[in-house]
Amino acid sequence: MRIAVIGTGVVGRTVAARLAELGHDVVVGTRDPSVTRERTQPDRFGTAFSTWLEKHAGLRLETFEAAAAHAELVVNATSGLVSLDALASAGAANLDGKILVDIANALDFSKGMPPAVRASSEESLAERIQTAFPGAHVVKTLNTMNAFLMVDPAQLAGGDHTVFLSGNDASAKARVSELLRSFGWRDIIDLGELSTARGTELLLPIWLSLMSALGIPPSNFQFKIVR
Amino acid sequence: MRIAVIGTGVVGRTVAARLAELGHDVVVGTRDPSVTRERTQPDRFGTAFSTWLEKHAGLRLETFEAAAAHAELVVNATSGLVSLDALASAGAANLDGKILVDIANALDFSKGMPPAVRASSEESLAERIQTAFPGAHVVKTLNTMNAFLMVDPAQLAGGDHTVFLSGNDASAKARVSELLRSFGWRDIIDLGELSTARGTELLLPIWLSLMSALGIPPSNFQFKIVR
Repeated sequence: MRIAVIGTGVVGRTVAARLAELGHDVVVGTRDPSVTRERTQPDRFGTAFSTWLEKHAGLRLETFEAAAAHAELVVNATSGLVSLDALASAGAANLDGKILVDIANALDFSKGMPPAVRASSEESLAERIQTAFPGAHVVKTLNTMNAFLMVDPAQLAGGDHTVFLSGNDASAKARVSELLRSFGWRDIIDLGELSTARGTELLLPIWLSLMSALGIPPSNFQFKIVR
Repeated sequence: MRIAVIGTGVVGRTVAARLAELGHDVVVGTRDPSVTRERTQPDRFGTAFSTWLEKHAGLRLETFEAAAAHAELVVNATSGLVSLDALASAGAANLDGKILVDIANALDFSKGMPPAVRASSEESLAERIQTAFPGAHVVKTLNTMNAFLMVDPAQLAGGDHTVFLSGNDASAKARVSELLRSFGWRDIIDLGELSTARGTELLLPIWLSLMSALGIPPSNFQFKIVR
């Protein structure tokens, strides 16, 4: 499948690399590719994006707009606070009729740690994205675990834990479920309409507390729904 | 231990009965015991409180105030929207220096289903209770599952799932952990300070979505933190 991954942070990189490994035609989208390519110092993810890109020859780096235009399916892997802006740069016309997989969380670090989560039981980031881009089929998933578990759940407890799906379009959710299964997910719970993304986005406060409480190695834990 | 359970709904009843069964001296607190006793028609929990009380001879029904005055440990099992009011009726002096186990959720059904959850990543009900009653040692726990699982976790998957603890007083949390173990809990995660109750209170939106998505029997599921 032709896939755009919007965002060059650790989540975007990890998801893009895995999708390319699975044989998809993947373009990573960034605001200004020349600026992103010029960064040669190791960043907070350990490696400069350009160094990382050299190691993943199958991947291309393009503007948000060119990446989205290329794709049948777009992954929003930006920070949730800038997602609407990044997707606007990608262009509503380039998202129209496409599956938009939203894996972002709107974490506001402006007042320090832990960040405030910009979601409530009455509004989610995913719904704000759907409202802004009504022609896209938004599916929320994968926002409740670290990037490495997103694409390789089997590395923890043999994959015996849960990923959630929310969205208004059943066929879009079915396509995204296939992708998740190709990552190794076995326990996929379809929560229902996109409004149920409020629940998964609101898992972030306890996720952040667990990261502190459970200690090293940080964030190598996951939610499982026992039933 | 001398324990007050504040609240006569299904959560209060279930917890009170289990504590009495375990040999504790339990008083259930209600606003007006004569009104509660006079209710003889089956209510939305299936049984009138008076009928239920007759079957639990070891339990007494008293005012909020008398129940709290009696107790070494107080359980807040009221609806979260009225908890501060009920605890004010119990009397700050009757909570002073005591462990206050808050198992409530502030669910606002005024706009229909699903209810809005009156908590955010910046404020929890538990913290509002702690601020209102600074002399109490508030411990948040058990608010992330149905009442039957609260007191008997082994009935689902042999008890292989997780309960969370939040609170500012380590010895209060240790006492509450003992109580939880007496219920059958084995996987108890101390999340840290009381502010981490924001995370457990914000599990309610996904809990409500799961209740719809997973179907019958409703709410017989639980969170497990795999690590």
